[in-house]
Amino acid sequence: MPEERIASVAVTRIARGSVTRNDDALAVEEPLEIRANDKNISVTMRTPGDDYDLAAGFLFTEGLIRSAADIESIRHWGSPNVVRVALKVPVDASKLDRHFYTTSSCGVCGKSSIDAVRIVSGGQAILPVRLSQEVVHRLPGLLQQQQMSFQATGGLHGAAIFTISGDLLRIREDIGRHNAVDKVIGSLFRDGATPLPDTILMVSSRASFELVQKAIVAGIPALASVGAPSTLAVHLAREFGLTLLGFVRDGRFNIYAGDVA
Amino acid sequence: MPEERIASVAVTRIARGSVTRNDDALAVEEPLEIRANDKNISVTMRTPGDDYDLAAGFLFTEGLIRSAADIESIRHWGSPNVVRVALKVPVDASKLDRHFYTTSSCGVCGKSSIDAVRIVSGGQAILPVRLSQEVVHRLPGLLQQQQMSFQATGGLHGAAIFTISGDLLRIREDIGRHNAVDKVIGSLFRDGATPLPDTILMVSSRASFELVQKAIVAGIPALASVGAPSTLAVHLAREFGLTLLGFVRDGRFNIYAGDVA
Repeated sequence: MPEERIASVAVTRIARGSVTRNDDALAVEEPLEIRANDKNISVTMRTPGDDYDLAAGFLFTEGLIRSAADIESIRHWGSPNVVRVALKVPVDASKLDRHFYTTSSCGVCGKSSIDAVRIVSGGQAILPVRLSQEVVHRLPGLLQQQQMSFQATGGLHGAAIFTISGDLLRIREDIGRHNAVDKVIGSLFRDGATPLPDTILMVSSRASFELVQKAIVAGIPALASVGAPSTLAVHLAREFGLTLLGFVRDGRFNIYAGDVA
Repeated sequence: MPEERIASVAVTRIARGSVTRNDDALAVEEPLEIRANDKNISVTMRTPGDDYDLAAGFLFTEGLIRSAADIESIRHWGSPNVVRVALKVPVDASKLDRHFYTTSSCGVCGKSSIDAVRIVSGGQAILPVRLSQEVVHRLPGLLQQQQMSFQATGGLHGAAIFTISGDLLRIREDIGRHNAVDKVIGSLFRDGATPLPDTILMVSSRASFELVQKAIVAGIPALASVGAPSTLAVHLAREFGLTLLGFVRDGRFNIYAGDVA
């Protein structure tokens, strides 16, 4: 287990009147500044580790770059908490906001969040998948098995990309669920493996609009979450033909968009 | 239960082979743009409702305003997803970033996150509290009892401020845990009730750096979370004398900073 993700702190445990003092393993949280060329693009509170995946995944899912070939280099830059991505493409200033998709949808500029995703995704269609119930039921167990740091700390979100047969392609963890998703997508993106048809993204958290948006931009046709989805996540998934499953745990799940055979 | 927070969507439920189709209540997620005077300060994905509390709480805990008297008016502005706060004080451009505290700590400007909090909080000391185990054990039950929307959707975070005797002062819910905390603090801030000595903030989520930061700025001396804290949350709490409790549930809790009698 990488040491940088977990740190030990002294703790006093109270349980039904008994008091014990020892050490507790906690998830490390540190800020990361992501720079593209010479611009500050984002600051996010993240768990150190896989910083290059996080930076690449963030720039990709936020629509600033489209392929690994757009990246000249990725390096830490003067601090372990700053990553500089040198790009071969210009940085689109209109997308510099951390919340490009959401900013587009407040009614001021007249676009909806869903329209903004359509523009950035280049109108690419999601190819519908045939998921089987048997595979879906196995996913939370597979995620948990692989998610070593969460078991130690209770504080890290996991995001894993599986084939629709249930084979693990990649897994990443972070204290932030958006970061965990950016890391796992960014890792495959850096390998030139995106878009990702016939895959499913499984997250240990709830499913928000932004997680569905990131899956769509990466061409991932299905998102399964241990927790609940939001209304906007469901609307976006239905609009783009993404299969969205929620409460995937304990031998059951809910289908909010798409279908499962 | 306010209708705007919850919406019904069609769902197919799969449980051990059985398939049922009906409706599910989900948490509503919509973007909110917060404007101060004529500047766009932040866009956040939030659950509608208590938007004025959210806007005021955000501006306060991010250090842009210090008292309710700094606010001239708060209104929706051309859209239910835009709130404009007219201020009697100028907007400090250096604090316009959503992540002022974290931006300050990437090593570029030489300040740490913790130093940034110290500057914004004006160096005000947190007055240590005497919490009793008996009260702490009661808090998760009290939060859950009050948190009606979560019970319906499984998708809303709750944040409640209690007196140290366990009396509820205010509770708010949101799909985002930072928003839930901004709403509950903002609500009391608008009443002129901040700082809040002899209170405890209880959250249904994990405890991150940003939640501890918000508690400190509001002068709340104790934070209790159902989930795990992060390393940086613990360091910040210890630095400022805030009592930080984690895993507060099922008749037990962990003390990461401060003490409980």
